[in-house]
Amino acid sequence: MMPHTVAPESKQAGQPTITILGSTGSIGSQTIEVLHAHHPHYRVGYLTTNTRIDELEQQCALVHPNGVVISDETAWKTFREQTSFKGRILCGEEGLVEASADEENTLVMSSLVGFSGVVPTLAAIRKGITIALANKETLVSAGELITAEAQRYNAPIIAVDSEHSAILQCLMGEQQEAIEKLIITASGGPFRTFTQEQLDSATPQKALKHPNWTMGAKITIDSATLMNKGLEVIEARWLFGIGPERIDVVVHPQSIIHSMVQFTDGSVKAQLGLPDMKLPIHYALGFPHRTPSAFPRMDISAIGTMTFEQPDLQRFPCLRLAFDALRTGGTATTILNAANEVAVHRFLRGAIGFTDIPRIVESTLDTIQPAEHPSLQDILEHDRMARAYAAEYQSHHHSIITP
Amino acid sequence: MMPHTVAPESKQAGQPTITILGSTGSIGSQTIEVLHAHHPHYRVGYLTTNTRIDELEQQCALVHPNGVVISDETAWKTFREQTSFKGRILCGEEGLVEASADEENTLVMSSLVGFSGVVPTLAAIRKGITIALANKETLVSAGELITAEAQRYNAPIIAVDSEHSAILQCLMGEQQEAIEKLIITASGGPFRTFTQEQLDSATPQKALKHPNWTMGAKITIDSATLMNKGLEVIEARWLFGIGPERIDVVVHPQSIIHSMVQFTDGSVKAQLGLPDMKLPIHYALGFPHRTPSAFPRMDISAIGTMTFEQPDLQRFPCLRLAFDALRTGGTATTILNAANEVAVHRFLRGAIGFTDIPRIVESTLDTIQPAEHPSLQDILEHDRMARAYAAEYQSHHHSIITP
Repeated sequence: MMPHTVAPESKQAGQPTITILGSTGSIGSQTIEVLHAHHPHYRVGYLTTNTRIDELEQQCALVHPNGVVISDETAWKTFREQTSFKGRILCGEEGLVEASADEENTLVMSSLVGFSGVVPTLAAIRKGITIALANKETLVSAGELITAEAQRYNAPIIAVDSEHSAILQCLMGEQQEAIEKLIITASGGPFRTFTQEQLDSATPQKALKHPNWTMGAKITIDSATLMNKGLEVIEARWLFGIGPERIDVVVHPQSIIHSMVQFTDGSVKAQLGLPDMKLPIHYALGFPHRTPSAFPRMDISAIGTMTFEQPDLQRFPCLRLAFDALRTGGTATTILNAANEVAVHRFLRGAIGFTDIPRIVESTLDTIQPAEHPSLQDILEHDRMARAYAAEYQSHHHSIITP
Repeated sequence: MMPHTVAPESKQAGQPTITILGSTGSIGSQTIEVLHAHHPHYRVGYLTTNTRIDELEQQCALVHPNGVVISDETAWKTFREQTSFKGRILCGEEGLVEASADEENTLVMSSLVGFSGVVPTLAAIRKGITIALANKETLVSAGELITAEAQRYNAPIIAVDSEHSAILQCLMGEQQEAIEKLIITASGGPFRTFTQEQLDSATPQKALKHPNWTMGAKITIDSATLMNKGLEVIEARWLFGIGPERIDVVVHPQSIIHSMVQFTDGSVKAQLGLPDMKLPIHYALGFPHRTPSAFPRMDISAIGTMTFEQPDLQRFPCLRLAFDALRTGGTATTILNAANEVAVHRFLRGAIGFTDIPRIVESTLDTIQPAEHPSLQDILEHDRMARAYAAEYQSHHHSIITP
């Protein structure tokens, strides 16, 4: 029913092989847990890390991959000297691309952080390999190119984000033309009830305390600014072929309804569950079939109350900026994403205030002219330009930073 | 995916023909509205009423059926004398069976009230005609027989109750073996927060004020006792092939989530919408495709809050009795349904108190020995016996009736 969502096993009758890009990150390590507990039929192709070689060593002992990739050269050298792992040990972005595009892969779990996922994910797509996509920046930065290539090479893209997994589940058995609207839920993040003044003085420590989900630092800050929801809107546009005018965001602080689809007859379907990324990971690994799991079950009477409210685009301008960039199209979302990545890292280092994040993103978008129907070169170039601009940007506003 | 749910149009390539059993009732008249507004491709076979011949005359002028059935003989004579309708004018249960089993029918909307739906619905099933089932008593009284006959004659049964339509929608694209649990929502009815004492003195006037749904009198009283939910649990068991141990009821006073399905991986899907029977009717008419509609859309931020709680089986014993009867099996649910119909009518006439309804049902169930794997004759016999007993039953409790 979805253009990019066909059964992984339709590609190959033999034992499926999964490569996990970013296996020591939050999604990557949970993927290994889920794989180990519930999907014993998978062989593991490659595991990859940037620098976390001790965790990588443990993962190798658990799932016995064919090979590993260590992006950081120093860490790669250390690992080679110390490890008892007997498989291939590759290095750098070149190694990532080789691992991702390995012909043995039936599925690549794309769970690198940020823009770094684009090139290796594209390499797998061009080999017709099914992508389980947890790296939303891939579609945010390069959605038009990626989805065109995925269609061309017949590479299905299965959503792993809980919101997009929810939409995918709601769309099973439905027809594309019956979709009226996607309704993406947002927890509202740790600052949902903050005043503008409180936002101005918000610290990384406070922002890193997410109410419902345990995630990496980058995505947790994105949750606090609502940029995460903006990135998800852009991702949804490419995953499901639905324009921004037909995507709504609703704040649902309990994070039980993970997203909804409204159909042209007025009916709405929702997917619900406890806030646990293992479920959408598990669903992606078994897609389109459901595999029994021992995960804790939701008890809706115990939950008792679910609430819903409109997002406040005044206090959380990142969501508005994301919608604007999506409407502009071309590399506007590449620029948005790059500026945001830089701004979030500057905030995490204590170099700028919380409300400087949208300021930097907006100024970058206002300054760099986006390219239409971009090639990979255009995307890499605009990503680089936006990063350079955002890294240098000095706010004219006075932000109060209380460390 | 469901054994009894295949496309109506798969049966016949020509113009689909619908016969509406009980066209002047609540569901029947809404079916005509929906048909007229959204399904112009349907021809109408027969419309049927018990006594409401003026409304029937108007419906004939609107949708031009091939024929009509008037169950009541006096009303039938009056109609024949007065009408300008040129089609066939049949009478009685014999007429209902003839209309329902007419070879031209591609779909029968079974929306008679109570047990009277069983025989005509079965007649259509035995001609392999698709049933849109709004008459839940058909499956409650004769579920085992009806579903066996539906499979034998390859007659799909499409749920029209909002709860079962919700489950059906959630099951699209899913596999039967992936179902872990059905979660049927209940508004809790007008007496949800009543004390036992308030329930003892509850009047028909109060019971007829349902908080969310506009329905007929019988079903509204059933909503107040929660027997309606019990009947739905029994109906769900036969529609979806899921035993009572895997059906939960949860009270959700806002009636926005119409029901849910929990899958074996721990994921839950729900169908949501405004409380309006036109949507499930519309869905059944177009099934398995969705047809665009102009019905008002749900605005979840405007709804704001949804709550969920366990049903109280102490104050609302009818729900417990229904689960018990379903576990007992055979004609136990026939007896439950017959006793309940009689008790509700006695309550509506002011002859008994509200809390006498479960007393009558329980006593009838305790008195009549159910038959296993019943034939239609067994069902008719036990239905008759239960009615006779329930009509004569005198409560030993003192019920306070305040008219």
